[in-house]
This record gives sequence, structure tokens and C-alpha cells, in this order.
Amino acid sequence: MTIYTTPILNINLKKITKNYLTLKNLCPNATPSAVIKDDAYGLGAIKISQTLYNAGCKDFFVAHAKEGAIVAPYLKDANIYVLQGIGKDSLPYFIEHNLIPVICSPEMFAYFKQTPLYQKISPIIQVETGLNRLGFTINELEKLSQNELNSFSYVLSHLSCADAPAHFMNEYQLKNFIQIKNKFFPNTKATLSASDGIFINSNYHFDMVRLGAAIYGINTTPYRTNTMQNVIEIKAPILQIKTIKKDEYVGYGATYKALKETKTAIVSIGYGDGISRSLSNRGKVVIYDSNNTPHFCPIIGRVSMDNIICDISCINNLQCGDFAYIINNDYTLDDIAHASDTIAYEVISNIGKNTRFIKNYIE
Amino acid sequence: MTIYTTPILNINLKKITKNYLTLKNLCPNATPSAVIKDDAYGLGAIKISQTLYNAGCKDFFVAHAKEGAIVAPYLKDANIYVLQGIGKDSLPYFIEHNLIPVICSPEMFAYFKQTPLYQKISPIIQVETGLNRLGFTINELEKLSQNELNSFSYVLSHLSCADAPAHFMNEYQLKNFIQIKNKFFPNTKATLSASDGIFINSNYHFDMVRLGAAIYGINTTPYRTNTMQNVIEIKAPILQIKTIKKDEYVGYGATYKALKETKTAIVSIGYGDGISRSLSNRGKVVIYDSNNTPHFCPIIGRVSMDNIICDISCINNLQCGDFAYIINNDYTLDDIAHASDTIAYEVISNIGKNTRFIKNYIE
Repeated sequence: MTIYTTPILNINLKKITKNYLTLKNLCPNATPSAVIKDDAYGLGAIKISQTLYNAGCKDFFVAHAKEGAIVAPYLKDANIYVLQGIGKDSLPYFIEHNLIPVICSPEMFAYFKQTPLYQKISPIIQVETGLNRLGFTINELEKLSQNELNSFSYVLSHLSCADAPAHFMNEYQLKNFIQIKNKFFPNTKATLSASDGIFINSNYHFDMVRLGAAIYGINTTPYRTNTMQNVIEIKAPILQIKTIKKDEYVGYGATYKALKETKTAIVSIGYGDGISRSLSNRGKVVIYDSNNTPHFCPIIGRVSMDNIICDISCINNLQCGDFAYIINNDYTLDDIAHASDTIAYEVISNIGKNTRFIKNYIE
Repeated sequence: MTIYTTPILNINLKKITKNYLTLKNLCPNATPSAVIKDDAYGLGAIKISQTLYNAGCKDFFVAHAKEGAIVAPYLKDANIYVLQGIGKDSLPYFIEHNLIPVICSPEMFAYFKQTPLYQKISPIIQVETGLNRLGFTINELEKLSQNELNSFSYVLSHLSCADAPAHFMNEYQLKNFIQIKNKFFPNTKATLSASDGIFINSNYHFDMVRLGAAIYGINTTPYRTNTMQNVIEIKAPILQIKTIKKDEYVGYGATYKALKETKTAIVSIGYGDGISRSLSNRGKVVIYDSNNTPHFCPIIGRVSMDNIICDISCINNLQCGDFAYIINNDYTLDDIAHASDTIAYEVISNIGKNTRFIKNYIE
């Protein structure tokens, strides 16, 4: 027996490359850009972007200029686009690192025109097609001069329901996007789809696709089996094993009462590591027995900041220092997202950034 | 009008000191230790621990040894206790930074005895009193020799329901703790309560209290008005203002349909910054009008990774670059936790660690 105390996050860079290349091959006529915002969904933007760069990617999207500044030194001659656009607080990052803003509004465009970058770089323009998030409306586009319209490298929009191909919003947004492109940007390149949109059909591909979630193994086609490879494994050591008596309580608020004598494992991971507290009394961890058979052990009681408690009555011969798996090939990001009533994007964003993990990259 | 794109997190160190001193004064006979685990609940362990050290705190609790190693260089001669204990993966941190483990099990104690630290430092022992999380049971304590029992500096346990003073678990755990102390640790100092426990009554104070959540302004007495000061302010710029027509949809999944023409603000913050996606269609942000009157504007549609969309129909004269407040004195950590069906501890743990914020410490 060896005692361990620290949770471990393993990130498989080979599988990230494989996912990227699979997606790229699905869109043979579009530039396959990579979305590495939010620290590459928490997995580490520097390492992930370098990996994708080495796989041939030369176009990257971040949300904030600060994120672009972090990866720029590692991505020579790549295009780094900033989705939240440009402002007084982010201008220095654009100048120092040659970042390219995605301009979302007339007000932001007016600001951009006052900066030294105007007419030196070609920004992207984002247009509104139905998401009602960022983007110029048709009324606002009509106020731009022909020279201004011609100053953009790409026209960009974003789909709201692309993970449900039959949703009426997809065709509605596609039609709006084509109308805007034809009317205002006939000679400008176009980009509409993120990972989910590319699976609808090739009408949604245009000149560039923005590959994000699917690179990280998330199933962006929830209406069918995931064709991406899981890229992460999270495991945490068992700190202690206890047998609690019938009628005893477990965890904060005494929300779990044992209906019978129950063997429990206290596992060294909690919401302080980004494991959602909504998994209290309803999540699961995977623990392997000596035959390597997986057992899906219920989380009992509330998830606390540093620990979860699991019912391990179904497994023999466990001991302190053995590991419980929070996410792996047998219990994926999408499975844990399902159990926590959210999407895999949020799960990994909250987990990956925590510095308490021992983070290993498998190359 | 000035355009901004980046969310801002302001942390008031003066109020953190004030909260610490208020709590300390409530426990005149106990050593007032500070809990700075999980990067001081996401607020920055180095800065927070230095502030508390300067206010006289000399005893600190972290969860993981790695966290202790980060703050140790700034806390000369302080005691830094590690709640998750010691293992093969964390031993080097203990040796290099003179950290003190909290030993939770016979197995961990057996490991500790093999390390060069045994008989050089006095660890804390954690005992089980009813939470059924970490800690020695009475059966396990009975197997320790008198010398072993005497080797600990403190006997520690943790309450499960201290935020509800009338809960039967409090008296039950107190009784168990006193029995264990009297039987096994008559001459050892004792610590039972975190922030919430100290408010039950002074019987719960013992020799050391572990002040955490309340220092950070969280209401650990939800049965009455918070007596702590709010210490954080989170605000994010409005990137764009839009008027959407009746029957248009907002955000991913088209989950929000406008029942009338609606003025919206797209705010530059999202679950990538730790703002829970569970606030979709039910959270609020605070926006101030020109008279500085707060308006609680509903989040409409889903929270996305980088943006939330708010209904601002009730406010005139807003413009791009104005700020929406996510957490402040008018809408506290506890308010947003309530809206997201969780506790303030989890809210701030997920938000504070995100590097996308401009983080300012107010001294």
C-alpha cells in the first residue's frame, strides 16, 4: 500500500491531434481553425495550441486578447483571432502580439478605427443571424461604406442549435447568413460553423470551420454515438475507507442516511477541483476491482470542497492509495455532464484550470 | 463611450482583514487560524494569507501540500496545516516547507511513521465524530499506543451541520468529540469549528477555530442576516446592446423567446469565467442607471462560455462599455449562490481562479 493525496489530470495530446485531423478531413474545402479559448477549455492553451500547430493548424480562435497573448509566442505566423473583440483594455495585447479582432458592433468598429491597427490588419466582422448574441444587424451593416465592408478578412456568424441538425434555427440562420454574405460581402471569405455545425452538412462549412469542443473529445453530435476520442482521464486517490453503520449520516447537511451497513471510500477531490457540487447524492465514480472490471460507485452525501464520499460496498479488497476515476473512457466528460445537468464544455472548463491537479500531458 | 472587453474581479483586502478580526473577537479564548485552501477559495492564497498574516494570523490551513508550498515563503514561522494529509506524492513539499499534516487514518499514520518527519514534527490527528468523512474511528484510536496518542499537537474534527445551530448533529458531534478528547487526548489541544461552528456557542470553540468562508464574506449563518462584509466585486463590460423583436429567440438551444420587443445587453462574461451555466434564464445582473439606482436585470437564454445576455428593457441610456455587476454589495455571493442552487463557497471557488479576469486587490 502506498498513500497518495493528490488528484491527477491526464491529457492525451495524441488523441487531440487525432480528433483534429478527423474533423479536418470532414471539411476538405474549409480552413480548419482551432478554438483554444478559455485556456483550451481548461486543458492548457499553450500545450494544446502547440500540438495543433504541429498538426498543421495555422488559425486559432481565443475569446480574450489576453488569451491570445499567452499562446502567440508559440505560434509563429499563425492567425490568432479574438472573439470578444477589441477595446481600450485589450489594445496593447493586439499591438504586441499581432492579434486579429472579431468586430461585433458599430461601436467597436468605431473604436477600432481610432486605433493604430486600422488599415494595417483586416479584422473579422461578426454578423447577427439569429443567435441574438454578438454581431452586426442588417440595419447596422447598411450604414457601413463599401470601403469599410471590404476591409474585413472574414464574415463570421454562429449557430444556436447546431447540435440538433433538424432544428428549424439551423436553416433559418444559414439562409440569413447567405443573404448577408451575398448582399454585403460577396467577395469576403465566410465562417459559420463550430464543431457541431460541420456535422449538419457541407453547406455549413464555407471557407473556414472553427473546431473546438470536438477536438477535446466532447460529443457535439448528441443525437448519435460520439465519433471523437476521449482525451482526458481524471483520477483521485482514496484517502480512507470506512464502514458506516445503518442509520448513520454522511457529509454536510446530513443529506445521506445509510439504509444498511455501507462501505465507503473518501476520495481526494471535490468542488475545489471543479467537480460540480450538483453531483451530490447522484454522481458516480469508476473504481476497478482486481479483475479490472469497472464498478460505477455512487457519490453519497454532498460533494465537499476537497472530498467526495462513495459507496464501495460492491468491491472487495480496495485499500487507501487506490484510485477512483472521475472521468475516463468508461465514464466520459459527456457522462459526467449528463449527471450534473449541464454540458461537457462547462464541466471541463471548471476542472481543467485547477492547479491542485498533477497535470500530465501524454505525447 | 469607451469600449472594454474584459471582466474585472476586485478583492477588498481591508474588508478581509476586518472580517478576520470580527471573527477573532468572537472567539477570545481560541487561536484564530485561517483556512486558505483552494487558493483562498479562488481569491489568491498568497495575497490573502499575507494580509491575514499582517493582521496577526500565524496558523493556516490548506487542503493540499502543494497549496502550502505556494504560501509558505510568505508566512515566516507560521504553522501551515495540510488537511488532506501526507502521502508519497506530497512528502517533498512537507520537507521543503515545514508543513504539518493532518493525519486522517491508521494507514496514513503508518506512512507518516516511515517518513523522516516522524518525531520531528507534531502532526494533527483528525477524528470521526459523525460527518463520516476523514478521521480515525474510536476502534482505530484504541489501537494507538500512549506514545503515539501523545505525538499529536491537536485533535481535530469537523461539523456537518453547523450552519443550522438547532440541527441534532451539532450536539451529537460535540458530545462525541468531547468523549474522544477526554478518553484519548486529555492533554492535547483541540479544534472542532470552522466559521459556522463558532456562531453556535463558545462550547464549540476549544483551543483553535478554523476561519474560512466567513473571512471571505460568505454568510455562514444563513438563519440570520450576515454580519460579515462583502469582499468581492465582479463586473463585466457590455459589448453590445440590441433590440430584439417579439418572437425572436436568444442564445444556444433557442431556450428564450421574446414575448415582446426587448432591449438586451450582451455582457462579456460566461461560464468560461466560472459564472454557472445553471443561471441560464434565471440569474440576474445588477446594472445602475444614471441616478445610480440598481436594476436587477434577468439573464435571458443560456449562459455561454464567454457571454451572458440580459434584458435591460427597464433602463435607459446604457451604452457599450458600461458595466454589468455580477457580484457586489447589492447582489452578493450568497445571492448568486441562491440563484444557482448551490452555496457561495462553490461559486467563488469556480470564479476566482480564472485568469481571464483583471484582478485588483484593494488595500
